[in-house]
Amino acid sequence: MEIKEDLKLIGSFASPFVYRIIWALNLKGVEFEYVEEDILNKSQMLLKCNPVHKKVPVLIHRGKPIAESAVILEYIEETWPGVRCLLPKDPYERSAARFWVKFGEDKNRSCYMFFMTAGEKQVKAAREAREILSILESEGLKDKKYFGGSEVGMADLIFSWIPCFLDMLEEASGVKVMGESSEDFPRLKAWCQEFRDMDVVKNTKFHRQEMVAYYKRRRLMFIS
Amino acid sequence: MEIKEDLKLIGSFASPFVYRIIWALNLKGVEFEYVEEDILNKSQMLLKCNPVHKKVPVLIHRGKPIAESAVILEYIEETWPGVRCLLPKDPYERSAARFWVKFGEDKNRSCYMFFMTAGEKQVKAAREAREILSILESEGLKDKKYFGGSEVGMADLIFSWIPCFLDMLEEASGVKVMGESSEDFPRLKAWCQEFRDMDVVKNTKFHRQEMVAYYKRRRLMFIS
Repeated sequence: MEIKEDLKLIGSFASPFVYRIIWALNLKGVEFEYVEEDILNKSQMLLKCNPVHKKVPVLIHRGKPIAESAVILEYIEETWPGVRCLLPKDPYERSAARFWVKFGEDKNRSCYMFFMTAGEKQVKAAREAREILSILESEGLKDKKYFGGSEVGMADLIFSWIPCFLDMLEEASGVKVMGESSEDFPRLKAWCQEFRDMDVVKNTKFHRQEMVAYYKRRRLMFIS
Repeated sequence: MEIKEDLKLIGSFASPFVYRIIWALNLKGVEFEYVEEDILNKSQMLLKCNPVHKKVPVLIHRGKPIAESAVILEYIEETWPGVRCLLPKDPYERSAARFWVKFGEDKNRSCYMFFMTAGEKQVKAAREAREILSILESEGLKDKKYFGGSEVGMADLIFSWIPCFLDMLEEASGVKVMGESSEDFPRLKAWCQEFRDMDVVKNTKFHRQEMVAYYKRRRLMFIS
């Protein structure tokens, strides 16, 4: 059942941060209007809604803008609490989930820095990415199936770029960080498969070729 | 009235991140046992409680450890909700407060990088710090007295290193980023004064000389 709301999401087709919000709203069954932003030529609406960072996603609920995807996820959880929780009920388990949200927020950028660098810097960045993935493997998924606890939640959405975008960033940059062998990161790979198998993800139409082409152009801008 | 709990805080006398938690618990009136950690020779307890980051603060509630000060603040708010809220009640205002929590978490390190650098790098870092302080001045305190809303809350605790530690970091590094004139950052300076005037802060015994000496030693480790 869909919940109808005065709700707009300003996004960009290639931003992993935007998909966190799309999937959270889909999991909650909350309807929203999606507004595509041209992030190379930003709209007045975006600049007004997120004057500090000028970035997508921005969620506009009843005319009020909320920026920063991790902040938006907390807002969604608090505003539509009854349906499909994104955080466990128990305060200690919630703190464990938030620990991984914070870890993701702090490390995701280092983790995909390999995509924004070249040469020796890229070699170093790819090594650092693998170190971060190793922590996710050994600590994040040590004693549970999902980062967020016993079902997909906020922390899993924070890491959703790994199952859904990492392979495109690898293709666009010509570097593999995840490894081909099933012996590399077995828990993380099983989690990736579980994540991709969710209905809300399976029902997402990725324009893969367009996205890889876009990432290649962005990469050239970063490394030049 | 104090609330008695099985509660331990592992901290370090010179860590601004630890004082966020001390003051949050003081504001809530929750009693705790403080355990001083030697962060140059970390205890087994710390390594076991925070295996990913190996850092203070760690809060241990009924035997269960919680790491990362921003995560601990959310836990404190959820566990002792009735007393002296750290987040506004309204979901939109909560998201605005969390926006500044996130901003602080992302930018605080850049903001005190001047303390960890020397020469040209330090000049650049001090400039970047002032740019971040300018955003706090113009956007963070634009239409409200506190970062967290109408009273001191989670976001203010995240920035508490500015009123309470910045001057010591400036002294230890020989660089001023906040400026001497009252025309520099007037809102931020007024907020700093309000923050320092709170009872929980006034009642905190800082060992200022020891702390500055410690920061000087740490600085030498960073720049060498």
